[in-house]
Amino acid sequence: MRPIKRLIKLEEALALAKGYAVQISKTESVAIHDATGRVSAEDVVSRISVPPFSRSAMDGYAVRAKDTYGSSKLNPISLKRIEVIYAGSVPKRTVGKGECGEIATGAMLPKGTDAVVMVEDTETSGKAVLVYSPVHPGQNVSKKGEDIKPATKVISKGDLLNASKVGALAALGKKGVRAFSKPLVAVIPTGNEIAELGKTLKPGQVYNINSYTLSSVIRANGCDALAMDIVNDDLEDLERVVRDLSDCEMLVFSGGSSVGERDIMLDVLEGNGKVVFHGVAIKPGKPTLFGVIGSQLVFGMPGYPTACLSNAYILLAPVLRKMARLPDKTPESVEAKMAKRVVSTTGRTQFLTVKLENGIAHPAFKESGAITSMAFADGYIVIPADVDLLEKGETVRVYLL
Amino acid sequence: MRPIKRLIKLEEALALAKGYAVQISKTESVAIHDATGRVSAEDVVSRISVPPFSRSAMDGYAVRAKDTYGSSKLNPISLKRIEVIYAGSVPKRTVGKGECGEIATGAMLPKGTDAVVMVEDTETSGKAVLVYSPVHPGQNVSKKGEDIKPATKVISKGDLLNASKVGALAALGKKGVRAFSKPLVAVIPTGNEIAELGKTLKPGQVYNINSYTLSSVIRANGCDALAMDIVNDDLEDLERVVRDLSDCEMLVFSGGSSVGERDIMLDVLEGNGKVVFHGVAIKPGKPTLFGVIGSQLVFGMPGYPTACLSNAYILLAPVLRKMARLPDKTPESVEAKMAKRVVSTTGRTQFLTVKLENGIAHPAFKESGAITSMAFADGYIVIPADVDLLEKGETVRVYLL
Repeated sequence: MRPIKRLIKLEEALALAKGYAVQISKTESVAIHDATGRVSAEDVVSRISVPPFSRSAMDGYAVRAKDTYGSSKLNPISLKRIEVIYAGSVPKRTVGKGECGEIATGAMLPKGTDAVVMVEDTETSGKAVLVYSPVHPGQNVSKKGEDIKPATKVISKGDLLNASKVGALAALGKKGVRAFSKPLVAVIPTGNEIAELGKTLKPGQVYNINSYTLSSVIRANGCDALAMDIVNDDLEDLERVVRDLSDCEMLVFSGGSSVGERDIMLDVLEGNGKVVFHGVAIKPGKPTLFGVIGSQLVFGMPGYPTACLSNAYILLAPVLRKMARLPDKTPESVEAKMAKRVVSTTGRTQFLTVKLENGIAHPAFKESGAITSMAFADGYIVIPADVDLLEKGETVRVYLL
Repeated sequence: MRPIKRLIKLEEALALAKGYAVQISKTESVAIHDATGRVSAEDVVSRISVPPFSRSAMDGYAVRAKDTYGSSKLNPISLKRIEVIYAGSVPKRTVGKGECGEIATGAMLPKGTDAVVMVEDTETSGKAVLVYSPVHPGQNVSKKGEDIKPATKVISKGDLLNASKVGALAALGKKGVRAFSKPLVAVIPTGNEIAELGKTLKPGQVYNINSYTLSSVIRANGCDALAMDIVNDDLEDLERVVRDLSDCEMLVFSGGSSVGERDIMLDVLEGNGKVVFHGVAIKPGKPTLFGVIGSQLVFGMPGYPTACLSNAYILLAPVLRKMARLPDKTPESVEAKMAKRVVSTTGRTQFLTVKLENGIAHPAFKESGAITSMAFADGYIVIPADVDLLEKGETVRVYLL
């Protein structure tokens, strides 16, 4: 057995792992319908004007603004309607002095006009249109290129594409965008005691939980998860898996990072790459291992489900986001008051799950092996390493699960 | 032309639309790898104990606790190691008085033992194990069923499945779960002026933006988006589309809800169902239409891209979430100070997009037709209908896009 000799602080562990993480450089073509949430790998520059023509911003009458000057409710000015212009059609006639064109929102302004009187400020009588209110030039008109001029950079390389940025791509007629690929992260459950879901458990076995919780966190943080079969605690088997997965940006093992004789992830990492840290001052999740094999990052997560998942939230997710070029993200949180005094372990950051009831946080943590420590909780509190005690009634920030 | 006669308040519009929305009742089988973010349609009750056997929570030595009483650093107690028990294996021997079994984290406790001494509190010399610290019965042991007992309800119908709840399903060996189906929402762009992406624009045409922004919002709020082809402003065409889409839970039209002669969505709704409201006191997005055709909800969103998208966030998203059985969600927000005085329209809620720079919110809104009003913004402020003015330097809440 090889005890963990030195624990490094959580902040130090996080900085080290993020330091080794490289932003993905691979790119791929993504259809616009799948572009939301992706990161653009290109500057997108407009080659057109949006709108491509000056158009009416209102339903009403396209006019020469100066023809309307002096009009009022009591002294309307009468204009002759010479055409009706629907959206999508092209005006056939030029509007002259004393004339106007009936126009729909979004329709092209006819030649000769420079403003639109909204329908609410008019009255019609046959082809005569009574205008009750003057408009200034440009009023109720969206000028050609007002939204986007040619040569405008609409999307920058590195932009996270939200709905409105996807809308801007559509405004240019783009059917797709070059986006950064999602980093490929293999999830490898290890341990002779782990059984796959759906199988009958043999004595001494438990079901594979970590592959599913880890994949969930990996996908929620901009990466693709590749779920591998369970690997026995066997050096040769583990090394074969590592060789087979050389095209992945990251390998996440679960189990096998503690200190037992059979915990051979350390050997795999020492033999094929480099151990960066082994042992983090966090509770639960102390026996977390991190290293590199060439340019590939390797995490050895604790086998116990709540230790594995809480470390995935705190330590793994920020590294995944950096690789995927996503901005840091703090989980949604609420303030609550502690239901009772909690004594924390000095020198280790504690991840304490809680159940919320009317603004009161009740500790929900059972033990790091119990998935219900989290599955039956509403959120978690992070107790810093230098805080020993939370008093009953103390205000705490609860990050929602 | 048919002007909108009465605007209803945003809050009233939202309450009406949510009132007509029905929580989805269709269910489907979902594989556990796809279960995160889905809503369980079943109570999941455990038939097994988790863990299925009492196991060691530490690497160390399984002992009879009373054999260790009185041990100390100065006066260790020596036990005879009779076996090594790895995780996943079954102990072969019963541990008697003065004996112990070397045991790995997660391994099954051998018969006769009731506690584990952690390896750090021991030293070995051949088959002799020196114990330096006493343990009490149950110490460092996860008892059979401590996480989940048989007949425990692990997931309730209606639970939103996060990573830890997916982990709890895995703990029971479940390969999938019955989940509520995602409501199917058809997105139908209308308007003779709208051209599909990738095509060359004809004079008077603009590209289809709303299908892509709406689909993005629909997918982000637990529903499936079905993007339909562009439909011309033609009553028969629109009615045929409505008939073809009778299996959708919701239809979202964009364009065609204003007051022009060709705005025939109102006719479609009046002829085939019921108009619930037409015209909302919000800026932009006033000409929003909502009604029902049988049990199907129908939204007529404004054609102008920013008006359409801002209404999708404010009015459509909460309705989608109710249908999908997702909890209400407030977008992430930050506080900022107004860069300048903004005069708002009295009587209408205003959705004002802003760009953030060092905690200062600069208005980014151009006009409701300009997608860059949102695509070049960082967030938005909601100015209530009864607020006329935001002063320069006033603190505002900015919801991030």
